[in-house]
Amino acid sequence: MYNQTVSNSTSKNVVKMRCVSCKEEYQDSDAGTCKECYEEASETEEELKREIDELKSKVSFLSSWSPFDDHHHHLSSSSSSSSFFSDVLLVATDDESPPVPANKAVLVSRSPVFKAMLETEMEESRSGTIKISDVSYNVLRSFIHYLYTAEVPLTEPMACDLLVLAERYQVKHLKSYCEKFMTSKVNGENAIVSFAFANQHNAKHLLEASLSVVMDNMDKLTKQDDYKDLVEKDPRLVVGIYEAYLAKQVNTAAASSK
Amino acid sequence: MYNQTVSNSTSKNVVKMRCVSCKEEYQDSDAGTCKECYEEASETEEELKREIDELKSKVSFLSSWSPFDDHHHHLSSSSSSSSFFSDVLLVATDDESPPVPANKAVLVSRSPVFKAMLETEMEESRSGTIKISDVSYNVLRSFIHYLYTAEVPLTEPMACDLLVLAERYQVKHLKSYCEKFMTSKVNGENAIVSFAFANQHNAKHLLEASLSVVMDNMDKLTKQDDYKDLVEKDPRLVVGIYEAYLAKQVNTAAASSK
Repeated sequence: MYNQTVSNSTSKNVVKMRCVSCKEEYQDSDAGTCKECYEEASETEEELKREIDELKSKVSFLSSWSPFDDHHHHLSSSSSSSSFFSDVLLVATDDESPPVPANKAVLVSRSPVFKAMLETEMEESRSGTIKISDVSYNVLRSFIHYLYTAEVPLTEPMACDLLVLAERYQVKHLKSYCEKFMTSKVNGENAIVSFAFANQHNAKHLLEASLSVVMDNMDKLTKQDDYKDLVEKDPRLVVGIYEAYLAKQVNTAAASSK
Repeated sequence: MYNQTVSNSTSKNVVKMRCVSCKEEYQDSDAGTCKECYEEASETEEELKREIDELKSKVSFLSSWSPFDDHHHHLSSSSSSSSFFSDVLLVATDDESPPVPANKAVLVSRSPVFKAMLETEMEESRSGTIKISDVSYNVLRSFIHYLYTAEVPLTEPMACDLLVLAERYQVKHLKSYCEKFMTSKVNGENAIVSFAFANQHNAKHLLEASLSVVMDNMDKLTKQDDYKDLVEKDPRLVVGIYEAYLAKQVNTAAASSK
């Protein structure tokens, strides 16, 4: 039952109300919205959810086919590869893996590098084969799948490899997808390696996130092997860490003296 | 200023609070949520908006190229058509319009009818040309643009023509896009025509919406030319209107007698 209680013993008047959302009782000092605003907010939420459903259906309409869709599993069989109308092959040159079929129109539309390659009289456009070095078959497969569907399951090594490939072929959407994933995985263990990786591949958000974690663990910094490796390989970057740390200390001191 | 006022003259205790959303004062009887739920709801809204942004960016990534993108405006010039890597032509047979270039892989992925046409040894797959009758060049162009981008600007006649084409080629996503638009445009003037159209093309939502508007205007029904035409062309459908109207009257009577 809904109970209104007024205690006039103190200077504050305590009226208990019931929240229309969580159904719990609360006091006037913990009041949130009026009823009208609550109803408006609920409507807004419904509208946003409808918009999400519409956008999801658009994504599924536009990404409805890929060289790795279920019904194209057996790419080597003649019927499937003909139904896919592929006009270009991608080959990972590092292993003895089968070529990955694709459509020039898709590659050109997703990557300015493929566009330059295939629209001009380059080796790739004549031969219909694009050789990709320093990449495994699995990473190449995931890369192509992403170009067709804007989706791919990630693990940390896969995100790392795909980010490098996305940067090489200027597929911004995939690069930020991987960067977001890697940023969510930064911790005390991998912060130094992430920081160096982010610096090498111009991944700004990952750089900031990993630098922030490195600075939260300065007491352990010099004891880590990753730190020693970085001093060896890229001492300027280590200087960058110390400079950021010093600037933070100066700022904190200035703020606390105010 | 925030004022709390208690009037103990009545049995109700009136405490005025300020809504954190609209900043207006309200009484405890108009209370909506507690502060905690308000904050949660705000967070949810932020999350939904972020999800919308991500989905929009996916849609734009996946729909980044179409035969009618700005940089492919002059499809007849050799450089553009080569950069588009088209492997099939669509021709509107009703007018002397230029053929519309497209990619088999896209057509096959969006329409089961094109899939059947192009994956088997039919005339279209051999010739690389798909003839489409009963359609203008403009409608065909919009149809193809939609297959590549999931977007197209609609007018009422265009929505009508595209719905018919979408039904013919089983492009469900486009059909419901057009149906939604047409449903939003149903009014007293066009309800009978919309109802007949919806019935002919199995558009359930449009059928319900237009039948409902027809039933709201029964007093003027028999005076309309569209009604007379429909009696002439499809009297069974007119019987459907009367049956629905009768059922509604019976229901209303039953509800009010309770």
